[in-house]
Amino acid sequence: MDRQEAPSDTAAEQGKHPRPSAAPAAVTSADGPPAPVVGMVGAGQLARMTAAASVGLGIGFRVLAASAGESAAQVSSDVMLGDHRSSADLLAFAAGCDVVTFDHEHVPQAQLQALERAGHAIRPGSAALRFAQDKLAMRSRLSELGVRCPRFEAVDDLAAVEAFADKSGWPIVLKAVTGGYDGRGVWVCDGLAEAAEVMTHGLSLIAEEFVPFERELAVLIARSSSGHGAAYPVVQTIQRDGICHEVIAPAPGLPDEKAEEAIRMGLEIARDLDVLGMLAVELFETSDGLLVNELAMRPHNSGHWTIEGARTSQFEQHLRAVLNLPLGDPGLTAPYVVMANVLGGQDPDLYGKFNHVLAADPALKVQLYGKPVRPGRKVGHVTALGDDLDAVRDRARRAANYLAFGTEEP
Amino acid sequence: MDRQEAPSDTAAEQGKHPRPSAAPAAVTSADGPPAPVVGMVGAGQLARMTAAASVGLGIGFRVLAASAGESAAQVSSDVMLGDHRSSADLLAFAAGCDVVTFDHEHVPQAQLQALERAGHAIRPGSAALRFAQDKLAMRSRLSELGVRCPRFEAVDDLAAVEAFADKSGWPIVLKAVTGGYDGRGVWVCDGLAEAAEVMTHGLSLIAEEFVPFERELAVLIARSSSGHGAAYPVVQTIQRDGICHEVIAPAPGLPDEKAEEAIRMGLEIARDLDVLGMLAVELFETSDGLLVNELAMRPHNSGHWTIEGARTSQFEQHLRAVLNLPLGDPGLTAPYVVMANVLGGQDPDLYGKFNHVLAADPALKVQLYGKPVRPGRKVGHVTALGDDLDAVRDRARRAANYLAFGTEEP
Repeated sequence: MDRQEAPSDTAAEQGKHPRPSAAPAAVTSADGPPAPVVGMVGAGQLARMTAAASVGLGIGFRVLAASAGESAAQVSSDVMLGDHRSSADLLAFAAGCDVVTFDHEHVPQAQLQALERAGHAIRPGSAALRFAQDKLAMRSRLSELGVRCPRFEAVDDLAAVEAFADKSGWPIVLKAVTGGYDGRGVWVCDGLAEAAEVMTHGLSLIAEEFVPFERELAVLIARSSSGHGAAYPVVQTIQRDGICHEVIAPAPGLPDEKAEEAIRMGLEIARDLDVLGMLAVELFETSDGLLVNELAMRPHNSGHWTIEGARTSQFEQHLRAVLNLPLGDPGLTAPYVVMANVLGGQDPDLYGKFNHVLAADPALKVQLYGKPVRPGRKVGHVTALGDDLDAVRDRARRAANYLAFGTEEP
Repeated sequence: MDRQEAPSDTAAEQGKHPRPSAAPAAVTSADGPPAPVVGMVGAGQLARMTAAASVGLGIGFRVLAASAGESAAQVSSDVMLGDHRSSADLLAFAAGCDVVTFDHEHVPQAQLQALERAGHAIRPGSAALRFAQDKLAMRSRLSELGVRCPRFEAVDDLAAVEAFADKSGWPIVLKAVTGGYDGRGVWVCDGLAEAAEVMTHGLSLIAEEFVPFERELAVLIARSSSGHGAAYPVVQTIQRDGICHEVIAPAPGLPDEKAEEAIRMGLEIARDLDVLGMLAVELFETSDGLLVNELAMRPHNSGHWTIEGARTSQFEQHLRAVLNLPLGDPGLTAPYVVMANVLGGQDPDLYGKFNHVLAADPALKVQLYGKPVRPGRKVGHVTALGDDLDAVRDRARRAANYLAFGTEEP
């Protein structure tokens, strides 16, 4: 006859009057061991969305931010201000964490190794992260492993560039070997004059053949220290002006054997490089097969669709992987999921455009990053899902355009 | 030929070297107006899950917590410590917020009205909240509006109880009129002796007929100040010992006309009581139709399934409603969604049981509330979804049992 007792959320915790016949209160448990704390170095939108994913897991989540206004620092309860290039700051940060992971690839190797020598659990570790930091090391290692990549060569001078171009033909792609500083760059060069101008920056460079790809794909893998891996469905990414605009999950019309090949490549790379956490493998689909373009060892723009579009988001999955918890189901929640980035336009007021976008499409999901709008900057994204790919793409693009430009068709 | 430029998440923000032919950098926009700040009074699990939902909307979110260790305070970047019964604390809290809303019903009317007199936007307002705070006012008002409720009467003394029971028959239900204190209570009384013992507490009471219901249902409504409303599918709730154990969405086997009636009742109550934000209407399904049991004007345990099981979670929806943003799609993401509460057992270590639960069911979603385990206390919940109701219920119950008791079949 208890079934009509107060059904409110809080009644059980308010010490309500017992029924006259109620059993005596049970003995109070001692508090349990504290849940682990994951620290993320960097406080951009990836850390912001990871912070949101940490809430359900009941774990602690800490960010190392350069300033209190950064995207993730705005929404995190545990923020340390510091410099990701400073060993002192990193060691102080790691001291409060059970596991340290990363929102970007910019922590230098020496500092990563110092954290490891001090006994901190760094996931991914320095040896793996090197391959996300150093394009020459990445290309060389993948080639050793038999993974197909664009033809590449370290080029120390213009003569080396010319020799490379003689073999591969123009255009060629010059890439800065390391991205641990503001000068991260990729240049498509049509001839020697353009290459010469790039060389004036004084960076270590590799040259790569220009791949006439049919489209770009990405495969997202999670791997935990127990060696378990989980692969998300292969997606198509659409870049314009070097910036990701749209991600379609799953990649439309991709034959099963090609999807399986991409997933196998991703799982093997994760295993062979000992990646812990999320790995994004960006691929070129060509008439001649799949080639690896880039690697990232963290949640990635090509996986933002997973927040609503997969049973386990890449942000929760990254946390589960670095904590060595069992990985979650990476399966789709709808036949098609499309994510479109919101790139800053001229109007700094994103929130003011919500009314139109949310009213026009009540099923659309929006993620804003809390960043000041700058033209071309990623300030948010939208996700739509459904059965009809064209309709889903249209919804996502209209919403992203409106948020960026104040019009659905810029 | 830009299509091979660096596709990393951060490249666009790292001031990468432009291509030699790149257009000049666009003019930097001025920063836009700040997004609004929603303040939630109370820092339990409802505020905690609302905090997580606030991240994607890019709004500010602030909680008024009694202590820094409370569930929502653990995960919120903007926490004010204070007493929800103190006008000074509430006014100081509201001064930093564009809209103030609530995680519970315990702010007294005088303090709510003081906030309104000071010009703060309180959603729901004091006039609406009264009907979630005062059961006599709620029953009287709903009866005036023609909404069917259990027969009720204010009872000031035992003679009044006896007179009521003479009409309705035993058992009767005695309820404390107001719940703004620890003595919130509901007692099912089989006879006058039990009722007399309840009367010794010295509370204002109403007596209600004991309704021989077939099952309990709930309907969740969102309503914004523009008058727009959105209704979630009607759910079945399963209570044991007065505590919600399980919620099934949609309520299995509920005829369409009954679901429509419940939704119509919910929308009318929301409109007539001028509710802003979420409204939960708990219903008895009887052989004689639907009766309203309780009202709550906030996100509610009967809506936790919406985090993964509806296109828009009740937490995001509450924020959208109190901000007068367009409401989101309340539709289901799967044929069946089942939420099971994790009630504290004797073992205080929830996190330590994750390995088994997550490995056993990779598609299960877990929300832990960061609260110390106390026997019977709501410390988290799990959600499963799929096509086969029996299988989905089984998954949710096994996981909730294991987290609570360390065994799937207690």
